[in-house]
Amino acid sequence: MSGALYLVPVPLGQPEQAARILPASVLETVRRLRHFVVERAKTARAFLKSVDMPVLLQALHLAELNEHTREEAFPALLEPLLAGHDLGLLSEAGCPAVADPGAGLVALAQARGLRVIPLVGPSALLLALMASGLNGQRFAFHGYLPTREEARGKIIREIERESRIKRQTQIFIETPYRNSALFAALVRHGSPDTRLSLATDLTLPTERVRTQTLAEWRRQPPPDLDRRPTVFLLLSGQ
Amino acid sequence: MSGALYLVPVPLGQPEQAARILPASVLETVRRLRHFVVERAKTARAFLKSVDMPVLLQALHLAELNEHTREEAFPALLEPLLAGHDLGLLSEAGCPAVADPGAGLVALAQARGLRVIPLVGPSALLLALMASGLNGQRFAFHGYLPTREEARGKIIREIERESRIKRQTQIFIETPYRNSALFAALVRHGSPDTRLSLATDLTLPTERVRTQTLAEWRRQPPPDLDRRPTVFLLLSGQ
Repeated sequence: MSGALYLVPVPLGQPEQAARILPASVLETVRRLRHFVVERAKTARAFLKSVDMPVLLQALHLAELNEHTREEAFPALLEPLLAGHDLGLLSEAGCPAVADPGAGLVALAQARGLRVIPLVGPSALLLALMASGLNGQRFAFHGYLPTREEARGKIIREIERESRIKRQTQIFIETPYRNSALFAALVRHGSPDTRLSLATDLTLPTERVRTQTLAEWRRQPPPDLDRRPTVFLLLSGQ
Repeated sequence: MSGALYLVPVPLGQPEQAARILPASVLETVRRLRHFVVERAKTARAFLKSVDMPVLLQALHLAELNEHTREEAFPALLEPLLAGHDLGLLSEAGCPAVADPGAGLVALAQARGLRVIPLVGPSALLLALMASGLNGQRFAFHGYLPTREEARGKIIREIERESRIKRQTQIFIETPYRNSALFAALVRHGSPDTRLSLATDLTLPTERVRTQTLAEWRRQPPPDLDRRPTVFLLLSGQ
């Protein structure tokens, strides 16, 4: 019988805190696994160490899957499943297969009729949406916006318009060192009554989630987002 | 100094399992709270009992917030915060303020500059998206689709078209006793190569997440979704 593909969440920035940040039922499952597909072996080892695996880390089978992995390599990554082993898929941080390269492997497992089991853990997108107070009944995630000034301004106005028409919260992210530039663009191109939520350093001691209108953000000194993981959420109208 | 509004996730269907389904750090936080806003007092008590609160349940302050609560009542619900108490917001199941009536209260807390802290726990939408293998870089949640046959057929075709143009996973839910009707409508109105994922009974022993093309779903006997909480996800094209 084939094994199951477990989707294992990783803490957002404190891999050594895994035993406190993941549920007991998830920790028990992870401790049973011996085969993993991980985004980066180094982070994965720090995570697995903190989970108190009952075997030496050297005894674990780790294969890498990241943005450089070609689709032709996916079938080999699933081989432990066909040999009857359960397999854990780990992201760098947060939930695998959401805003990371793991979804392709999950798609292949689904296409082959293999069992896929998602485990509970931290997701920056979801935590940000909860704490924003913006519409949680309708929302869209866009990934990264374009970085060129002109294209970015255009998409900000489009997203704002879509938000207003559909009453839909718009969620997006940026590489942390570009956060301040994105914030500046939002303040420049967005309309004053649009609400913008910034969710920074989620689950970390420095966490802060703040929702204000763009008019309010404009009146204040810009927030310190530099190199701090941040989720951006926007809701326009009403 | 004002208290903080904690957003407390509740297990999906097994409130008595909270100590295994929530992380240790979350359980510690919940045990410190004495004031709660809850969707339904009865479920909340079952949940709080399972969390092993260090005080009698009678000593806790529970106020209700549900779909019947009018916005005029929200300020009174936040009063414990102004009196310096931390406050926990609980949904019926899953993460508060996502696809439930809590977002309005969070919005008010944000508008008043109060601190909002989201806690890690199960979200059916997120678990379904992870395990679907569909696009996790771009997705939209629509809440409930219309139930009238004609309107539903129209929106299914619209959602499918949007999915194809934007390469965006489309996520929606239904009242559990109407799941089978929604499934039948999807099979009837959708195009054969559209992938449909059904995520049923998430985190429960009967959990199943299955992604197939509509052509494949059509060839099989319909899945048993009756009265079982199910998230529907669809991706067209690529």
